[in-house]
Amino acid sequence: MDPRIREHAEVVVDHSTRVEAGDNVVINGSPQAEDLVVAIAELCGERGAVIDTALGSDRVQRAYSRAIDEDDVTLNEMARARYEQADVLINVRANRNVNEASDVPPAKTAAMGRANKPIQDIVMDKRWNATQFPAPGDAQNAEMSTEAYADFVFSAVNKDWDAVREHQDQLVELLDGADEVHVVSGETTDVTMSIAGNVVQNDYGEHNMPGGEVFTAPVPDSVEGEVLFDKPVMVQGREVLDVRLVFEDGEVVEHEAAKNEEVLTSLLETDDGARRLGELGIGMNRDIDRFTYNMLFDEKMGDTVHMAIGMAYGDTVGEDNERNDSAVHTDMIVDMSEDSFIEVDGERIQEDGTFVFEE
Amino acid sequence: MDPRIREHAEVVVDHSTRVEAGDNVVINGSPQAEDLVVAIAELCGERGAVIDTALGSDRVQRAYSRAIDEDDVTLNEMARARYEQADVLINVRANRNVNEASDVPPAKTAAMGRANKPIQDIVMDKRWNATQFPAPGDAQNAEMSTEAYADFVFSAVNKDWDAVREHQDQLVELLDGADEVHVVSGETTDVTMSIAGNVVQNDYGEHNMPGGEVFTAPVPDSVEGEVLFDKPVMVQGREVLDVRLVFEDGEVVEHEAAKNEEVLTSLLETDDGARRLGELGIGMNRDIDRFTYNMLFDEKMGDTVHMAIGMAYGDTVGEDNERNDSAVHTDMIVDMSEDSFIEVDGERIQEDGTFVFEE
Repeated sequence: MDPRIREHAEVVVDHSTRVEAGDNVVINGSPQAEDLVVAIAELCGERGAVIDTALGSDRVQRAYSRAIDEDDVTLNEMARARYEQADVLINVRANRNVNEASDVPPAKTAAMGRANKPIQDIVMDKRWNATQFPAPGDAQNAEMSTEAYADFVFSAVNKDWDAVREHQDQLVELLDGADEVHVVSGETTDVTMSIAGNVVQNDYGEHNMPGGEVFTAPVPDSVEGEVLFDKPVMVQGREVLDVRLVFEDGEVVEHEAAKNEEVLTSLLETDDGARRLGELGIGMNRDIDRFTYNMLFDEKMGDTVHMAIGMAYGDTVGEDNERNDSAVHTDMIVDMSEDSFIEVDGERIQEDGTFVFEE
Repeated sequence: MDPRIREHAEVVVDHSTRVEAGDNVVINGSPQAEDLVVAIAELCGERGAVIDTALGSDRVQRAYSRAIDEDDVTLNEMARARYEQADVLINVRANRNVNEASDVPPAKTAAMGRANKPIQDIVMDKRWNATQFPAPGDAQNAEMSTEAYADFVFSAVNKDWDAVREHQDQLVELLDGADEVHVVSGETTDVTMSIAGNVVQNDYGEHNMPGGEVFTAPVPDSVEGEVLFDKPVMVQGREVLDVRLVFEDGEVVEHEAAKNEEVLTSLLETDDGARRLGELGIGMNRDIDRFTYNMLFDEKMGDTVHMAIGMAYGDTVGEDNERNDSAVHTDMIVDMSEDSFIEVDGERIQEDGTFVFEE
């Protein structure tokens, strides 16, 4: 086995989820992820944990989803019971074909999501981690060879995450307790927002592996200005290019896109919260040096900022602050590597991708 | 998809487990069985059932089993909770390498079996079915090409099981309420046993697919005579050839084998029950026309009789009768196709493989 797979497993088992003796560990994967699941299972055994492993099949999921009547969709009590008994959930993504769900009616997928929401809530209270194995379908989606994609994934994952935490803490300190954040990139992005009273989170690879971002929630009504998101935005499997949003009093008052603008329009019309920001994130994982059409990686890309329209994460909203609520949470990315800066309460904290603490 | 796979799925979903709307269906398989699991999932969706699918990995199981300390082995509460919520369990076997567990210490496998015995007990109360997908590892084990093995499996599985039940009921009627069964094959097998008061079961493919046998339990002390089992017996992955047992008062008093006799000796010494018979079965599935080193098929082979040393199934033992108890249950097969007969209370019911009701 590629020794990088064993290293990846150690990162997930020992750093991300801190598996120890007696833990009940649910491991979900797919047949394509088998090597990493083998390595994770072996480590869990060495730690004295109990594992319950399921390799899922997107072909099985597609066949069932197409066959079931939407009215028959109900909570999966078997899965609920399984997750309730778990202390740790490890979810390894790996695709042979990322489009396997492309002919499942979206309404059915949505109905299953709603019916199984209680399972999501159960998982959120566990030590959980989502990670990626470099399978051929994901490499294809990233427009890379499988070997080059494996190099990319393992570079992003296999590192000293305690050092990452310390490095990122420097940015957390700059943002913590601040009010106004001002993001400028070229002629096309100039936006201000308040994060006053909200909580700044350091993602050093607990829930997502790779991690590598610092994120918080904007105060919903505070966003003013315009943003051109220069990386592609994937919405329900469709690529929306060059999304441009104009904000007034926190609300999107103008929007356009160079491709699939109607998908963007439909997204913004989902509900009231879909026209406001729910997240401001700053990508800091410089081993993620390219866009791969996979948000687990893309949002952590070094020298980028991302903003999500829609739902704000509960752990980023201060107790006395309003939380933006929505059925959607769609991240969109701005390149900050050139002709760009971030200012916090008037102090420049990043210029052309370089933070003040890196100079 | 091969239409025979869809037919196989229909047999399992509609005949064996009678899946209906609202059922919770656990489907276990392996990546090699994916096509059949897809077909089963689709049918379950059409029936309005909820499914929870897990493809297991023998490589994951091997890695975990080798790594865990035997003292840390405990009940898998995640699996227990999942099975408790199920109405139906479908287990699809399919191997790429039947020897994947060959370097797991048997003591660990045994410890896991003991720890998870409560899960077995839960499953036994459900509508459960074990079946086989014709994967390359199983074909290799059967000394067949994968294509020829697929023909073999689908012939054994895809048939009118109501007709099978009716056909086999003729044998059940001959055995039901009988006392002495006398089995003779060539010069080497001549054995009598009582089945008085025990229950005769008709296996028409509910719990096993393929089914195709009629079976009951001998009265433990009643077995007298000698048997040469002319098909190979697999014990813990080792092949024991030409097993010969001599019974007095139900107990094995002499034993020999042409190959791996010491494995047979060790098996018989497991406990007191391991030296007595727990099952007498008569194979009736004539589409199983060859030995394939897979007991799911071998014990149903047409024109054979099998006897198991060890544990008797509860549903074959009459209320007032003694049940042979043991940690083992090992089936062994006698060819009855030539120079052979079965008599029940002195009446010949089968000669050279042909039943009286077939003449």
